[in-house]
Amino acid sequence: MGEAERAPAPGPTLVIVGGVAAGMSAAAKARRCHEEAHIVVFEKGPAVSYANCGLPYYLGGVIRRRDDLLVTDPEFLWQRFRIEAKVGHEVVDIDPAGRTVKVRDLAGGRTFCQPYDKLVLAPGAEAVVPSIPGRELPFVFTLKTLADTDRLAAFLAEQQPRRAVVVGGGLIGVEAAENLVHRGIEVAMVEFLDRPLAFLDGEMAAVVAAHLQAKGVALHLGERVVAVEEEGGVRLASGRRLETDLVIMAVGVRPNLELARKAGLVIGDAGGVLVDEYMQTSDPHILAAGDCVEKTLVVTGKRQLLPMAAAANKEGRAAGANAMGRRIAVRPYAGTVIVKVFDLAVAATGLAEEAALREGFSPVVSYVLEGHHAGYYPGAKLLRLKLVADQQSGRLLGAQAVGEAGVDKRIDVVACAIANHMRAEDLLDLDLAYAPPFGLARDPVIVAGMQFQNAMRGEWQPVSPRWLADRLASGAGEKDKDLQLLDVRTAAEVRRTGVLHKSARHIPVDELRNRLAELAPDRETVVYCAVGLRSYVAARILAQRGFTNVKVLAGGTLSWPHALVR
Amino acid sequence: MGEAERAPAPGPTLVIVGGVAAGMSAAAKARRCHEEAHIVVFEKGPAVSYANCGLPYYLGGVIRRRDDLLVTDPEFLWQRFRIEAKVGHEVVDIDPAGRTVKVRDLAGGRTFCQPYDKLVLAPGAEAVVPSIPGRELPFVFTLKTLADTDRLAAFLAEQQPRRAVVVGGGLIGVEAAENLVHRGIEVAMVEFLDRPLAFLDGEMAAVVAAHLQAKGVALHLGERVVAVEEEGGVRLASGRRLETDLVIMAVGVRPNLELARKAGLVIGDAGGVLVDEYMQTSDPHILAAGDCVEKTLVVTGKRQLLPMAAAANKEGRAAGANAMGRRIAVRPYAGTVIVKVFDLAVAATGLAEEAALREGFSPVVSYVLEGHHAGYYPGAKLLRLKLVADQQSGRLLGAQAVGEAGVDKRIDVVACAIANHMRAEDLLDLDLAYAPPFGLARDPVIVAGMQFQNAMRGEWQPVSPRWLADRLASGAGEKDKDLQLLDVRTAAEVRRTGVLHKSARHIPVDELRNRLAELAPDRETVVYCAVGLRSYVAARILAQRGFTNVKVLAGGTLSWPHALVR
Repeated sequence: MGEAERAPAPGPTLVIVGGVAAGMSAAAKARRCHEEAHIVVFEKGPAVSYANCGLPYYLGGVIRRRDDLLVTDPEFLWQRFRIEAKVGHEVVDIDPAGRTVKVRDLAGGRTFCQPYDKLVLAPGAEAVVPSIPGRELPFVFTLKTLADTDRLAAFLAEQQPRRAVVVGGGLIGVEAAENLVHRGIEVAMVEFLDRPLAFLDGEMAAVVAAHLQAKGVALHLGERVVAVEEEGGVRLASGRRLETDLVIMAVGVRPNLELARKAGLVIGDAGGVLVDEYMQTSDPHILAAGDCVEKTLVVTGKRQLLPMAAAANKEGRAAGANAMGRRIAVRPYAGTVIVKVFDLAVAATGLAEEAALREGFSPVVSYVLEGHHAGYYPGAKLLRLKLVADQQSGRLLGAQAVGEAGVDKRIDVVACAIANHMRAEDLLDLDLAYAPPFGLARDPVIVAGMQFQNAMRGEWQPVSPRWLADRLASGAGEKDKDLQLLDVRTAAEVRRTGVLHKSARHIPVDELRNRLAELAPDRETVVYCAVGLRSYVAARILAQRGFTNVKVLAGGTLSWPHALVR
Repeated sequence: MGEAERAPAPGPTLVIVGGVAAGMSAAAKARRCHEEAHIVVFEKGPAVSYANCGLPYYLGGVIRRRDDLLVTDPEFLWQRFRIEAKVGHEVVDIDPAGRTVKVRDLAGGRTFCQPYDKLVLAPGAEAVVPSIPGRELPFVFTLKTLADTDRLAAFLAEQQPRRAVVVGGGLIGVEAAENLVHRGIEVAMVEFLDRPLAFLDGEMAAVVAAHLQAKGVALHLGERVVAVEEEGGVRLASGRRLETDLVIMAVGVRPNLELARKAGLVIGDAGGVLVDEYMQTSDPHILAAGDCVEKTLVVTGKRQLLPMAAAANKEGRAAGANAMGRRIAVRPYAGTVIVKVFDLAVAATGLAEEAALREGFSPVVSYVLEGHHAGYYPGAKLLRLKLVADQQSGRLLGAQAVGEAGVDKRIDVVACAIANHMRAEDLLDLDLAYAPPFGLARDPVIVAGMQFQNAMRGEWQPVSPRWLADRLASGAGEKDKDLQLLDVRTAAEVRRTGVLHKSARHIPVDELRNRLAELAPDRETVVYCAVGLRSYVAARILAQRGFTNVKVLAGGTLSWPHALVR
């Protein structure tokens, strides 16, 4: 391209800081809104608009060519959009009164000033590295940017590490673990909390933990790394030491706020740049988008950080349009997340049960454990779906799902339902696509709606595993006049798996009508089976035969996170 | 089970006619609502609650064992639910005043009267057989019930037919065709309309037609069978004759209304039993559910027949509960359908473009053709998604999708959006699950929302293939002052595929800014590319450079249903 072509455009100057998801979306949308604008993007890294979410899969060899990660380049952006995309350029300072940014050309070392009419901040987030001794050692990595990935890929190729420790069991942590295992590396994962993927409730996360272990990942839960040791190891808070050739720090990310602070922008309580629904910051000439800004959640109405690529794209688009005088709003988020964990898809949207409790709701739960499509059609995979609603208002609060197939579909449907403030029981009225290869005549989402309708109308009273575990732990079931635990599975199932608790009484559902005399109708009764269907049938029998307080363990033995007993 | 156990229950008597999806759902739900009710189900066929939707796959050998189709049996229903399920029992008459039905035991020949307090009619629908000569020949079959299937399975095993004609290109027709091909049978399909799967718009159905042909199904569209000939053939209205060893009549189903008529129930204009949202018929003691009743659609508010298993299950549940004094409403349906066509999933919800036109809407369309997940992650399959909105109100009207993967997910999300009366552009705010193995940072549903937002705000003016084809067919583009058709693909693409129309002018999008002088800014201009993205970029350039009437062909050459020209 000739310099002549790059003569200053007659329109306003839009400067964008950051050229990945939010920044490039803003630039392209701005051009579509204003053909005459002068649009400049400064990206400090070596590439614009690369596939950030693909980085772990490139390391694992699932994505084979680095070029596949590069969605576009400055040459193309100029040709197609007349966008000046300057890689290796870091914006180091900002003068909001004078409306200029100071830019350093990292290769040339030159620093220059760039004036703007509108500025879009899209600097993203950076990986957090805990302040522990050894964090600077050459075998310690983060996995956030393309530059991180290049460094790690080179290390993997040159050093051929045999063992790795992944610090953090969040999204990046589990993706890193899976991809290192694909390369034949022995992986240990250290997570401070009691579970991987803390957006899940405990009993759902337990399924993920078991799967990680089955795939060879050594899990160290409730543990913290206190030092990385030069000779190749990490020291844990418990005193334990793990030998390793490689450490990946994946404890989370935090917004890049340096420029926002220099510009005096208001930072919100959740620790991100505060923007209104038009992505406008507290400075009338500055917008912000992507991982650096706080987002509002539908269910709680609260702001929080949500460093997700889809959000960054959408916000960048709105910021680019609004910088050019349009008015595009970004609405509150359901809060949806999905991650592949080896053979499993694991996803959630809205609030988990524990989060709902923390937010002051009265959660009622629904579990559906079924094939992801009709069981009589070959290839059905077990799908675990847990939904959470608010008992008071009947409102749908959230969903979690784990399974080999069909997970993303159900979570997306619930995300749409949450966006529309649906009542949980109204899920049963959804007209979802059914044919045997694709679903069930009663889709799990619809079954959940039926369960909620029954719960809201008092036809049954589901209790969650955490509720029952707490009751049993505090001694319920020990005494004859206390909680009566009833297992209605077949004798064969009980023989095979044991029962939930030593106090459990076993009466198969099909014998229940003839054996009612063995139970005390005035005692609090909790019925369970493997999943929840037979126990619901049993509970309806009991409730209509004079039992005054009958509860059902939602999710049954298959969702019970503790060991069964003989 | 002893006769003693079957002593009359002390509660009300609920009689249910039909023991498949709706009927058995009603029976089981009624029991959960009323432990003391006397519940009797009469099913004229040989089995209750079998997997109706699995029948074609059993014939194709995909489902190997007939037993897999049998979900339950009378013995189990008695043990678990105290439901008397009487197979081989046909209800032949009804006395609504006396509240009795007359039942014939088909095996014994005995006829008896059964009184009821409440009656649920769930007789389903029956296959329509056209009144043509030869319809009674032994190699002519329908494929609706288990009995049909048993008869056809025996024929296939004994006669080993080499050729088959499937009459009808609807859901059952394409499922039958696929499964016969799986058995190595040569299949011809005769369809009266110009396309298979008439719920699709023409250009979407064209993809399905091409796939059927690629899989070896000989398509005879716009053709009608006028006779079946004893020596093994069918005669078409065009005079053509197809030799065959087997004919499957799959031209549709119609509600079984005989009993409803005998009871004097009101039949609706759409030809089904008229019920309110509680599944109550015009007789206070009779409810009806499933394929025999008319359903209300969300988008049009009109009633129509919708013989779908998921609806039958849901309505049966409501009818069973309401017969026992509950109040469970069934809300309007989005109108969702999905079918497997060899390697493709084909689905739709709400209204297609042509249906929207017929209903008096001003449809605006959106096409997204993309991988079903991130392109840089291996295994992405092309997904074609078409959405339809109303230009006046901005309301989302419907969606169609065709592809090897990800079809059901997008249709279910749109079905949920339709149930919530969403505006089409608000789809862009959905927070859908994204990670590279599962989706795209900009999910096709979100991209469609963006397209609609742009359309509603006048940022672009998409036109559908049918609109452009009509214009071109009426001579537009012929004269210099008329429609200006602009192809903005690369030279290589144009060389490979040809252009849409001989009048098309070719300027690659990246050269457009420098070649504007070659175009007339005051002429009506339609821009196209392969899908719609580059043409959108081009249209924005033109609109901002003084072109006054710029349209974009939605879906591009890849959604163009006609042959391209050189």
